[in-house]
Amino acid sequence: MIKVGIVGGTGYTGVELLRLLALHPKVDLRVITSRSDAGMPVSQMFPSLRGYVELAFTHPDQAQLSDCDLVFFATPNGIAMQEAPALLKAGVRVIDLAADFRIQDVALWEKWYGMKHACPQLIEQAVYGLPEVNRAEIRQARLVANPGCYPTAVQLGFIPLLEAGLVDRNNLIADAKSGVSGAGRRAEIGALLAEAGDNFKAYNVAGHRHLPEIKQGLARAAGHDVGLTFVPHLTPMIRGIHATLYAHIEREAELQALYELRYKDEPFVDVMPAGSHPETRSVRGANVCRIALHRPQQGNVLVILSVIDNLVKGAAGQAVQNMNIMFGLPETTALTNVPLLP
Amino acid sequence: MIKVGIVGGTGYTGVELLRLLALHPKVDLRVITSRSDAGMPVSQMFPSLRGYVELAFTHPDQAQLSDCDLVFFATPNGIAMQEAPALLKAGVRVIDLAADFRIQDVALWEKWYGMKHACPQLIEQAVYGLPEVNRAEIRQARLVANPGCYPTAVQLGFIPLLEAGLVDRNNLIADAKSGVSGAGRRAEIGALLAEAGDNFKAYNVAGHRHLPEIKQGLARAAGHDVGLTFVPHLTPMIRGIHATLYAHIEREAELQALYELRYKDEPFVDVMPAGSHPETRSVRGANVCRIALHRPQQGNVLVILSVIDNLVKGAAGQAVQNMNIMFGLPETTALTNVPLLP
Amino acid sequence: MIKVGIVGGTGYTGVELLRLLALHPKVDLRVITSRSDAGMPVSQMFPSLRGYVELAFTHPDQAQLSDCDLVFFATPNGIAMQEAPALLKAGVRVIDLAADFRIQDVALWEKWYGMKHACPQLIEQAVYGLPEVNRAEIRQARLVANPGCYPTAVQLGFIPLLEAGLVDRNNLIADAKSGVSGAGRRAEIGALLAEAGDNFKAYNVAGHRHLPEIKQGLARAAGHDVGLTFVPHLTPMIRGIHATLYAHIEREAELQALYELRYKDEPFVDVMPAGSHPETRSVRGANVCRIALHRPQQGNVLVILSVIDNLVKGAAGQAVQNMNIMFGLPETTALTNVPLLP
Amino acid sequence: MIKVGIVGGTGYTGVELLRLLALHPKVDLRVITSRSDAGMPVSQMFPSLRGYVELAFTHPDQAQLSDCDLVFFATPNGIAMQEAPALLKAGVRVIDLAADFRIQDVALWEKWYGMKHACPQLIEQAVYGLPEVNRAEIRQARLVANPGCYPTAVQLGFIPLLEAGLVDRNNLIADAKSGVSGAGRRAEIGALLAEAGDNFKAYNVAGHRHLPEIKQGLARAAGHDVGLTFVPHLTPMIRGIHATLYAHIEREAELQALYELRYKDEPFVDVMPAGSHPETRSVRGANVCRIALHRPQQGNVLVILSVIDNLVKGAAGQAVQNMNIMFGLPETTALTNVPLLP
Repeated sequence: MIKVGIVGGTGYTGVELLRLLALHPKVDLRVITSRSDAGMPVSQMFPSLRGYVELAFTHPDQAQLSDCDLVFFATPNGIAMQEAPALLKAGVRVIDLAADFRIQDVALWEKWYGMKHACPQLIEQAVYGLPEVNRAEIRQARLVANPGCYPTAVQLGFIPLLEAGLVDRNNLIADAKSGVSGAGRRAEIGALLAEAGDNFKAYNVAGHRHLPEIKQGLARAAGHDVGLTFVPHLTPMIRGIHATLYAHIEREAELQALYELRYKDEPFVDVMPAGSHPETRSVRGANVCRIALHRPQQGNVLVILSVIDNLVKGAAGQAVQNMNIMFGLPETTALTNVPLLP
Repeated sequence: MIKVGIVGGTGYTGVELLRLLALHPKVDLRVITSRSDAGMPVSQMFPSLRGYVELAFTHPDQAQLSDCDLVFFATPNGIAMQEAPALLKAGVRVIDLAADFRIQDVALWEKWYGMKHACPQLIEQAVYGLPEVNRAEIRQARLVANPGCYPTAVQLGFIPLLEAGLVDRNNLIADAKSGVSGAGRRAEIGALLAEAGDNFKAYNVAGHRHLPEIKQGLARAAGHDVGLTFVPHLTPMIRGIHATLYAHIEREAELQALYELRYKDEPFVDVMPAGSHPETRSVRGANVCRIALHRPQQGNVLVILSVIDNLVKGAAGQAVQNMNIMFGLPETTALTNVPLLP
Repeated sequence: MIKVGIVGGTGYTGVELLRLLALHPKVDLRVITSRSDAGMPVSQMFPSLRGYVELAFTHPDQAQLSDCDLVFFATPNGIAMQEAPALLKAGVRVIDLAADFRIQDVALWEKWYGMKHACPQLIEQAVYGLPEVNRAEIRQARLVANPGCYPTAVQLGFIPLLEAGLVDRNNLIADAKSGVSGAGRRAEIGALLAEAGDNFKAYNVAGHRHLPEIKQGLARAAGHDVGLTFVPHLTPMIRGIHATLYAHIEREAELQALYELRYKDEPFVDVMPAGSHPETRSVRGANVCRIALHRPQQGNVLVILSVIDNLVKGAAGQAVQNMNIMFGLPETTALTNVPLLP
Repeated sequence: MIKVGIVGGTGYTGVELLRLLALHPKVDLRVITSRSDAGMPVSQMFPSLRGYVELAFTHPDQAQLSDCDLVFFATPNGIAMQEAPALLKAGVRVIDLAADFRIQDVALWEKWYGMKHACPQLIEQAVYGLPEVNRAEIRQARLVANPGCYPTAVQLGFIPLLEAGLVDRNNLIADAKSGVSGAGRRAEIGALLAEAGDNFKAYNVAGHRHLPEIKQGLARAAGHDVGLTFVPHLTPMIRGIHATLYAHIEREAELQALYELRYKDEPFVDVMPAGSHPETRSVRGANVCRIALHRPQQGNVLVILSVIDNLVKGAAGQAVQNMNIMFGLPETTALTNVPLLP
């Protein structure tokens, strides 16, 4: 059994980790921390977990995380970088669901996240946890930077094209739409049902923190810097990301076959028949990215539709996938639940 | 392995059965019928099932249902009563998710459902599939009438009181609120997002078909006819029923303890601490009924809050629970998934 | 022109007042205060008001409210009672949309609102602003206590029965459902779209602050104390209250005619044909209460359905109605907009 | 008074026309037709109109439309072209809210709409009713083709750029998101709350009927054919369109000033401060298009955000605006209501 700890269990990625880990046959969930709610049974805050999780939240100072084999950080940005060094030194493996170790260029990270990095020396050894790209490295990793939600949907959609060098890499557009759980379980007026319900808007068009992460991943695939316009939107639903991606084809190829081949051994990427319209609800609660290709009017613009559940393949599910890889388990362990539709 | 067939697989109870059965370790799903969509792969209509269900819909005339051990009817009312007799004769067991066999009084059934019953002789041998009441009979049953969604939530909420004879059984009120999936996957203007969204209304206040079913169940518990006012409402959400039940206390007792005792061995009824406010999302996707008791201002009106997912404990989940009981499997098999929250 | 000030313009009742007053032909909107957002143009916070409201928020200390003819308090409970005395002394009339002056029994108010009342001597002269009951008094009032949202829907639904003495006044039930804007524009986790969306729950079943207000109003109509069980629920929509009311008939009468007669001269109460199911969206954005009567199975329980827009007839619209009465204007001035459907 | 008739009053554009016309001081609403619901009072189908519209639906065969000064067609595509010729001959002016007269190229229209045009000779004299482009022609028009919802949002967003020749007109992208009322009040499974709620998807990516209409309008502005990729999406809300537009800047200019100048005399186009994020709810129920410009990372891609209420500026409101222009009334008559927020 893998002894697991979770730092920061009161947010949406925290409760989603608990939902998945509660049924994981190889996980022994030892401790879940919360500074504000220490002492409260987890299932009191999240009654959906009654009967599944018996733990109470532990104050971070009391949590014996170094006894764990693996610690997940489901915390705001800037926490994991404070605490990971000691855990790693104690031999504990770490998966950070926040952004602390995602960007290799420290200066760039510090600019976008507005803080000084606490352990820049660890960034290089952190493995970016996108299994479809880095499976081998993840297997050996001590420290995994779990990808962001938008970056997962956008990278999986663009990567086959960029790896094959078929499109204009300087002129990519990602028009992405997210449900409100992406904003986290935080009391903010803009995320109220009375504000975000029956409403649609773009936000952070001038620049969203996921932009450098996406560009880093796309550049890796392309072997070159890329030019990307990324516009995130808030859509009035709870879970789900729908990325609508636009690329200009420079060299013809069998695109559908290319995608199918690229992902044929991937358990969690579903290349749908050409011309499909993947819906976010078709992945609700499941660790899968569905992708479909369109070429409107046979022009030279390729439209790629990519959907994920932001809390699963875009966060907690991918983290469990990474854990499975790191510990030599079948990659799909505890990740086989069917999406909830309707 | 239990060889299973589903008649009418294109509605919400059908796809929900598929979601649950796809992961059931003892089920061999053999056939799913649809008159209108015969030939179409199931996963084309419901992409959430891609990778889980490989079957295509079969025309009812081609379906070899008599080779099955068990057939679920996930059809509109009035279908199962046509086809069940032949299947039963062939030794196939039947669970009807519609209403054909729920009411023991044939005349009453015919009045509320507006049709002549096709096999009244079978009604008496049909077992009403509410395990918390009829577990022993279900174990022996050849034909199970799976309860309606409202009846499940309301009966589980009232039964302990009526069995104990503590309240005025002539003066019960059930104010129930349902998500729109309860109306089925049917093209009706009233169920459009543009009509039912951001809107709340009562419907069928003059009389809803679930009324006689509920009264029959409550009368059985009380050992007497009951007086019930039942007002259903449509609430702008997809899944979930919230029943708010009112009863006048006639005899004092430890009510919380009474409920806890009544349901202590029930795997799918959760009596929450007194004063709780169960939310429908706390049971989303799961086969559980959560109940909480309130006694406002210490008056003589008891308020019972009872929530279920109408498609799970109110339909497909309860059907699988009944199947597990009928075939001697552990009752919770394939029903242990954690509710999806948020 | 009536010189109008608004204290506390950043909440939902504030912006709703602005929406209605912006087109009021007799109102000169002079000042809107906000402690936290002083200096910000109102239309920057609420772009829906671009082109309609040119004012910026003023810090309360800078606001010359005593130059106004009328000041609305769209503030949390406990503010108006601090500031109303000085304004009234200066000859300014006051409408409080919060609860400070709604309860005549000071001790009862202090118990439910958990604070000491700052000016108990004013309570007696405050007029409860339900025009359908108190029109004559409102006309003369200097200080109007604008009713709460639940109290408006519940009182208008029950009053004809109680005035006529037809039902058991000790055994009333009000099962009420509200959209989330009723919770105000406050950053609270429970009101997030990711929490309150696709979800239904009861809350404050043990006791909600509107209970004593409702009971006071019903007692006035009945000429006696009443027994009321009031259970509020949160439903996943933005605007609207649906009250489902239950009463036991003790004396037969032509109930539909009774309601039609009681409200025949009321511009903002619509008694629908018997057996109707009023929807909350049918009053969205409009100052109207729609009521329908049902008598299921011709039993002795009467079901009254009553719907309002909580922000209009339940708050800002009723406040403008009261203003129109107080200043001798046609009561419907600026309140004739058609509900927004769909 | 303008004598007005409406053909097809039971859809969303029909009821929206009624909402606006009910308060229009110069309109005498004479007749509303419906084939399926003839005889039913309009306010029975739409209780929101109780007290505002006293008419009942008239069967088309009984409707004396030729006595009207103006007839609106709020019908499916293909109806107006059958009936407009006779009305025009009788001296009645016509505004078609459907697509029959929007496309000047008959063959193109017939290809996209899949039917033979019934009166191609009228197409040339039809005026495309986008006042911001064609105000002078509308003033003289006998027959107005009211623009589609997507075309209104997309054209108003792109036109200033194309008229000024500043961007690559061969490489335009319009990623548009619509609420479900855009699909009309039709019983379709895909538009059910249980299907479209809590869900996001693209649709008709291969080609949507609004594409040729948009391209025609953009070509007119550019003085040249344009290359456009148009991807429509369905978002889980009732009203609203959000168009996110992408263009490659070829020539530098003061873009914000350009837009402000282009629309400075337009009562219904609101150019927001640069960097704003217009929300669909900020135009809910109102006849306005709000536009904001962004230039992410100061690159050469311009992002234009354009929002409308699809039923108002995208349909019925624009139709009333056109009527006002045609009949020499102030253009804003009956169109000054404040958007409903929240």
